[in-house]
Amino acid sequence: MAGSARASEEGLIARYFAPLAGPGAHGLRDDAATLTPTPGHDLVLTTDAVVAGIHYFAEDPPASIARKALGVNLSDIAAKGAVPRGFLLTLALPDDWTEAWLDGFAAGLGAAAAEAGCPLLGGDTVRSGGPALISVSLFGEVPTGAIVRRTTARVGDRICVTGTIGDAALGLRLRLEPAAPWVAGLDPALQAELADRYLHPRPRLAAAPAVRRYASAAMDVSDGLAGDLAKMLGAGRGARVAAAALPLSDAARRACAAEPALIDAVLTGGDDYEILCTVAPENVAAFQAEAAAAGLTVSAIGTVTSGDGPPRFEMRDGAERVFAAGSFSHF
Amino acid sequence: MAGSARASEEGLIARYFAPLAGPGAHGLRDDAATLTPTPGHDLVLTTDAVVAGIHYFAEDPPASIARKALGVNLSDIAAKGAVPRGFLLTLALPDDWTEAWLDGFAAGLGAAAAEAGCPLLGGDTVRSGGPALISVSLFGEVPTGAIVRRTTARVGDRICVTGTIGDAALGLRLRLEPAAPWVAGLDPALQAELADRYLHPRPRLAAAPAVRRYASAAMDVSDGLAGDLAKMLGAGRGARVAAAALPLSDAARRACAAEPALIDAVLTGGDDYEILCTVAPENVAAFQAEAAAAGLTVSAIGTVTSGDGPPRFEMRDGAERVFAAGSFSHF
Repeated sequence: MAGSARASEEGLIARYFAPLAGPGAHGLRDDAATLTPTPGHDLVLTTDAVVAGIHYFAEDPPASIARKALGVNLSDIAAKGAVPRGFLLTLALPDDWTEAWLDGFAAGLGAAAAEAGCPLLGGDTVRSGGPALISVSLFGEVPTGAIVRRTTARVGDRICVTGTIGDAALGLRLRLEPAAPWVAGLDPALQAELADRYLHPRPRLAAAPAVRRYASAAMDVSDGLAGDLAKMLGAGRGARVAAAALPLSDAARRACAAEPALIDAVLTGGDDYEILCTVAPENVAAFQAEAAAAGLTVSAIGTVTSGDGPPRFEMRDGAERVFAAGSFSHF
Repeated sequence: MAGSARASEEGLIARYFAPLAGPGAHGLRDDAATLTPTPGHDLVLTTDAVVAGIHYFAEDPPASIARKALGVNLSDIAAKGAVPRGFLLTLALPDDWTEAWLDGFAAGLGAAAAEAGCPLLGGDTVRSGGPALISVSLFGEVPTGAIVRRTTARVGDRICVTGTIGDAALGLRLRLEPAAPWVAGLDPALQAELADRYLHPRPRLAAAPAVRRYASAAMDVSDGLAGDLAKMLGAGRGARVAAAALPLSDAARRACAAEPALIDAVLTGGDDYEILCTVAPENVAAFQAEAAAAGLTVSAIGTVTSGDGPPRFEMRDGAERVFAAGSFSHF
């Protein structure tokens, strides 16, 4: 792959990764790839890494790990209103890597990349000297100047979110505390749904055109709704969010009914990979309709307010809550 | 940085990395950056990672580590005839990272990026769970279609290389075997020169325009001249290289005089980060002149031949040698 191709690294590349290479990657037989945006477009660049034991469980299926490594980056691109074009991969392997693991990883990566129309352009494979680490740099494109920024929300805008919130956090909780009463009380199919949301991000690529058309600001929810919303608004703007308007899956609704404290995990747990954005009130209906036409639900959950302070959540019991350091931190 | 900004990660970014951000990076306060090639140009993408204890010594100065992480990628871009435009950084920190280390790392990264005209566009900071790992994805640009490929050498072309070969490999050897007789016999200033070549790649960015104009194929020498030359030629072409024509520094010449077996380290050791390329015989003088005008020496060391088999090195004693698996492998 790019750069320091090594004798045995070359074998790995030819066997596992060359079949995934897209145009411009030159079959991964060069030190660099080419990528040129469509005329009238900007490239949008992002990078995110996942580490075994920190961002995923080392024993997760390797195809799922690959899908997550790609998905967390695709999610960033979608939230910026961009269309993916390709990616670079840094794969740092632990000393006990196996061919079976790499087979599964490459298969999962190829499938996820093909679904997203986002081919592999190059990469580097190294020994990690510790746990596995997968870093993806992903490139998308938007019409020139059309990238949707994170910190450009306007007071009075409605706060919208795609899909459902909290499922992945509950899926993680379920894996960490499988004997918890709320887990035992949950239908196995719903348990599986939550576990799947943690394991497999569902980057909302289909929402990108509508986000580009209607959102005044956008980001993906990776570190918890409460903290990410605070980051999106920054200083000088606040938010009022109605808990009753939060889009919860049937599984999340039942889990919270069984154990009301789980709403904190829903709001702060992270790994949602939904798109959080702000939309002028008069555009919300059109935004929802365009997203629906692309197969995605969009919920309006609150309003951007003036003033400082973290977003205020009006809970179902009438209490108001804030999550001061709401964002989940791996670091 | 891009993607999963975390509470305490945000503090690191604001303190250490936001000062390094270039145009399109939006002060590292978004999940993605924008980059658009100059009209009439292609973007050239590469990625390479370095790992503590594998690609560098964990105790190396953090500014040097940063310079190496960027330099190995700049070297790839230069060898493709491209001009750097910016980079993304994945910084995976061990659990015992310190502010002093990060201070030095950011300072070295900023200095190296400024020298190369290649600003930081975004990144991700994570815990590694093991040794430090630094992955850089670097973007350059070339006039449309002008990228210089690795595998396009023609039989009869002259094989050229910038600068000097083997210094970094000897610098590494010197650190691993400080008590070796050849080290003791070497002037301390020359020892320091070799050590510096290992520690600090000198990406040959100044050679890029001449490479673009004259080279039929090019790559950077990162894994040893013998193995990298074999990779560049691929199947169906060979090479005849005159050891007497190899550009050796004064330090390398003295080291090899003291211990003749060191010529193997010179030819296979790696970390040179010189540009290896092929040039039609009638263009060699012009190529050398243009490189010289940019402050770089270029040596013609051999010729591309027809036929299979690894490059043949005609040694000073008249013997012919090949290095079958000559490329150094970290993997």
